[in-house]
Formats: sequence, C-alpha cells, structure tokens
Amino acid sequence: MTTRLGVKTILTFGAGWIANSAYQVIHSKQSQTSGSIVIDGRIVKNRPALPIFGVVSAATPYDTNTGSDVATRVSQIMQHGFPSLDNIRSFDDYVLSYDRRNKVANWVFEHLTPDGVKHNEAVDRSKCDFKEDLSIHPYFRSTNEDYKYSGYDRGHLAAAGNHKAHQKHCEQTFLLSNMAPQVGRGFNRDSWNRLERHVRKLTKTYQNVYVCTGPMYLAQKESDGKSYVKYEVIGKNMVSVPTHFFKVVVAEDSNRNFIMESYVMPNAVISDDTPLTNFMVKPETIEKLSGLLFFDRVARDKLKSINGKKA
Amino acid sequence: MTTRLGVKTILTFGAGWIANSAYQVIHSKQSQTSGSIVIDGRIVKNRPALPIFGVVSAATPYDTNTGSDVATRVSQIMQHGFPSLDNIRSFDDYVLSYDRRNKVANWVFEHLTPDGVKHNEAVDRSKCDFKEDLSIHPYFRSTNEDYKYSGYDRGHLAAAGNHKAHQKHCEQTFLLSNMAPQVGRGFNRDSWNRLERHVRKLTKTYQNVYVCTGPMYLAQKESDGKSYVKYEVIGKNMVSVPTHFFKVVVAEDSNRNFIMESYVMPNAVISDDTPLTNFMVKPETIEKLSGLLFFDRVARDKLKSINGKKA
Repeated sequence: MTTRLGVKTILTFGAGWIANSAYQVIHSKQSQTSGSIVIDGRIVKNRPALPIFGVVSAATPYDTNTGSDVATRVSQIMQHGFPSLDNIRSFDDYVLSYDRRNKVANWVFEHLTPDGVKHNEAVDRSKCDFKEDLSIHPYFRSTNEDYKYSGYDRGHLAAAGNHKAHQKHCEQTFLLSNMAPQVGRGFNRDSWNRLERHVRKLTKTYQNVYVCTGPMYLAQKESDGKSYVKYEVIGKNMVSVPTHFFKVVVAEDSNRNFIMESYVMPNAVISDDTPLTNFMVKPETIEKLSGLLFFDRVARDKLKSINGKKA
Repeated sequence: MTTRLGVKTILTFGAGWIANSAYQVIHSKQSQTSGSIVIDGRIVKNRPALPIFGVVSAATPYDTNTGSDVATRVSQIMQHGFPSLDNIRSFDDYVLSYDRRNKVANWVFEHLTPDGVKHNEAVDRSKCDFKEDLSIHPYFRSTNEDYKYSGYDRGHLAAAGNHKAHQKHCEQTFLLSNMAPQVGRGFNRDSWNRLERHVRKLTKTYQNVYVCTGPMYLAQKESDGKSYVKYEVIGKNMVSVPTHFFKVVVAEDSNRNFIMESYVMPNAVISDDTPLTNFMVKPETIEKLSGLLFFDRVARDKLKSINGKKA
C-alpha cells in the first residue's frame, strides 16, 4: 500500500535482527492488498518473513540523497532496537509505531546526521500540508477536523526540521499519524521546540544522533489519596491529548563513543527560562511508564554518560 | 522461555495466515534466550519466520486431551483473526496480547467447546494460585502486591471455568497477565460472571464458540463540555483499572452458521436483574474505541445475526 506520499509498510529482517525486527502486515478491512505484504513498494503475496538484508553498522556510510531504499534506511534508523513492535510504519526518513486506541503514535524514531538537518534551499516547509495518514485504518485515523477548534496544535513528534534532505522527507513529517495534540504557545512553539533544537545541535558534536519521541499518559495523586490517569480526548475520532512527552536520545561520536539523554516534558506552558536539564529523567523511568524499551541493542555500560552523568 | 506453567511464546505462521499471523519475540533484558525464538518449548536461534503449519478450518477435529501442540491449538483459537499483534502470549488454551503501558492485557482470545467447559473431576480450581507472569518484562509485570488493599478483585479475562480440560489449562488462567482490577461484589462476582456463564452456555447450541475479552478506557463528558478519559492506577507498578470491559463472541453451529454477540459492561456495581441484552453494543463501536479489529477473517455478511438482529 503506497500512498501518494510514498508511505510504505515494509518488512525488515536480517540475520542479526531477530530480537528486534519489525514484522508488519497491513491490517485493514479496506485494503485492496489484503493478505499481502508491501516491501519497498512491491506487493509480496503470501510469503513468510525472509531475510532481505543483513545488519548494518553505524560505520556503514549512508548517502541520504539516494532515498530509494527505505528498507536500508529503516535498518539504519532502528539499528539500536525497536521500542515496541505495535503497528509499525516505515517512512523514508523516520519510523513510527501507532497506538490505535489513542489515535496517536506510541513513538517515532529518527536518525539525525549533520547532512540531514542542515539548511537546504530545495526544501520548503511552507509547502507541506497536514494530511491524514491513509495507511491507518479509518476507525483509528485522526483528521484535521479532530484538531479544529480543539485549542491544541498539531504538534510534530518527528520534527520537520530534522528532515531537510528532501522535500518528500519533510512532507512525510506532516502526516497526522506523526502529530499529537500539543499546547501551542509555551510548549510546542517554545520549550518543546527548544528541546528539538538542542537535539538537532548535537549533530555538531556527534555524527549520528538517534532520537525516540512519544506521548505519555501519566498518573497524578488526587485528594482521595488514589492515583489517576486523566487526559482529554478531542474531535469525532477522540484523539488523546497526552499529559507529557518524552525524548530519548543516543548520540555517537566518530570514535563510537555513545552518550544518552532522556527528557520528559509536561504538555503545558513552560517558562522559556527553565533549563532543559530540569526535564531530564532516568531512561528506566520513562520505559516503565510508557511500556517501551529504548536502545536495548546498546549495552548501557557502553554509554559514556547518561544525562550528563558518567554511566 | 518456558516457565514452570509451560508459558510459551510461539511463532504462528502458515500459507493462508499472512494477514493475521502473530510474530512474537521475547523482548526482555533479563532473557537468557535473547535473540532467540521459542517454538513449542524449543529454542530456535536466529531463524526467520518460516511456515510451521497451514491453516486449519473450523471443521478440523481437535482433541483437547492431547494438549501438546500449542501451535496447533493457537491456530484453532485464532483462526478468525488476531485483534492486534502487540506482545502476543500463547498459552495452552488461550491467547493474550499484553499492554505494557497499562500493565493489563489488551485482549485475550478463547475457543470454547462443549468438552472444554464441562465439569471435570480432575480439575480443581481451588488448587490454582494467582501468579506473576514471568514472560512479561519486570518493568511491565503486575504483582499480587499491586492488587493488595486496592479494593479491586484480580478479575479473570479468560475465565477459569472455560478451561476445564486440564488442570494446567485452569492454572494458566491464574497468571496475573490474565487479570484486570475489577469491582468485586456487583461486577466480577455477579453480573460479569453472569455474562461469562451466558457465553459458556452457548456451547450447548454451538459447537465452536470464539470469545475475545478485554479492558476499555472510555471517555466521559465533564462539566466543562470537554471529554476526558480517567481511570485509577493501583500498586507500585501502577496497574490500570479499566473503566469498562468488552466481550465479542462468534459462535458456529454444525452447519457452519455463525452468529455474533458483543457486549460492553462498566467496571461498576450492576444490578443482578439488568438483562445482559442491555449491554449489547455494536462490534464496530467496540473496535473504534479499543483500537482492535475483531474476527476480521469472518466476513460480516456470513453472520446470521449480530446481537440477535439479522445481519
């Protein structure tokens, strides 16, 4: 199933990938390719998961200008492990897991490089439109209508500014499956953007920056002494408004030294002078609360630091 | 990874199964079999998903007394389609999808037959203990401690009374991954039990009864005019207390006629004289709200009736 934006559901599998492979079949009553898998745009009928490529290492040179082999790019982006395997969508320059109950992604995964984030005259963000993700079953798909008059921004999870190698890469970040309802002023347009820029700037020091971003639905203690999760839902499709968002980052320098940073920010107005380090949270805490496991192919003892502290 | 209860994570794949197969790899930092798949108790290292059996039809005779081939039993239970493919666990007589964020299953799937539900002197429910499911990563696993003093029952999703062919089948329904916090008196012990007995009784008329059961977290409109999802979380592991539970049932008679019934009940005290038909809800509504797709391998126009109405 390839939409006009080139959304592909692919099957990634390789000898060393067995513990972290994404196996994804289009599950849609409307699908005309029911019972088939789409690999890189070609429909493969009734075939089990066969290895289609091996493991790539971070040292493998990757030319972001070819853009043709989504499978190879996905293996690059996801080489340090999938946080979960639920409803995976593989786009040209990022990977997404969709939460059909909440109508928002579980997580998106990006691989930032100096080339992918630098200014590119050929890419014009203002020409990108927010579009429904037709690869999501209509029962579970969010629409522009859902966000209208809700008071929330359509906030990018995979930031548009991280995908400047091609116009198509930028466009794919405008799919509504990559959006979550975010407080606009004071959050999406301000402190969350500040965090996105910080992550982008890591590419000045580190040649490979891997980022996992997603929503959280966190509990609070109420006056009765009990803890409750509470969040708004917007629109006809009842799109969930996350209470918080996380970002977990692994950056790798040219000597294959890794550092990790992990943040949780409330989906609320945050003062511009609050240091980003205030939002650092142990990765294990985010894992436990979100139900995800981050970078499980990177041994934690290989990390030089976690949130600035020697690991 | 086989626990003492014989919990197996298996790989189901067959020629006709491509659109609905469960591909599941144990994803655990603690796993000693990391990077390997367990098929029917045997560890298979670094092997891609190969077809291990074909499709079985409802007409295939199945002897519930052999109990040795979990893969075959899973293909029986799940023959009408997987509601989702997230964290599948295959037990000897039921299948479960686990929600690591909420620490409760997304759904459980059962196949009831007259033989499996009839009284069996060899099976003693009182000898079954509530046990942690060691196949779930400790970050996401609920414990007996979580339920203690919470005021909620450890409510079975796959009902113990549906699994009377073997003591082991009954025991496996006592794993905490099969539990959800349920209101005890007035719900778990009363009206929910009434619904379970109704489903069991369908085996008197229908030779095959397929049941999918799971939690729901439903929104309510509040006084500010906005809709909110709100639910309690209990214990150190913050196990979610669902607001509602669903059951979607497909029953098949000896002439391969199918009927469907689908229910939603609030996790609350319900008067014993409320007819079960009051809780019937269109299956599409449950699908949209839960993020699941039920029995998608049964064409809806093959159903003789849905909730008692001619389909």
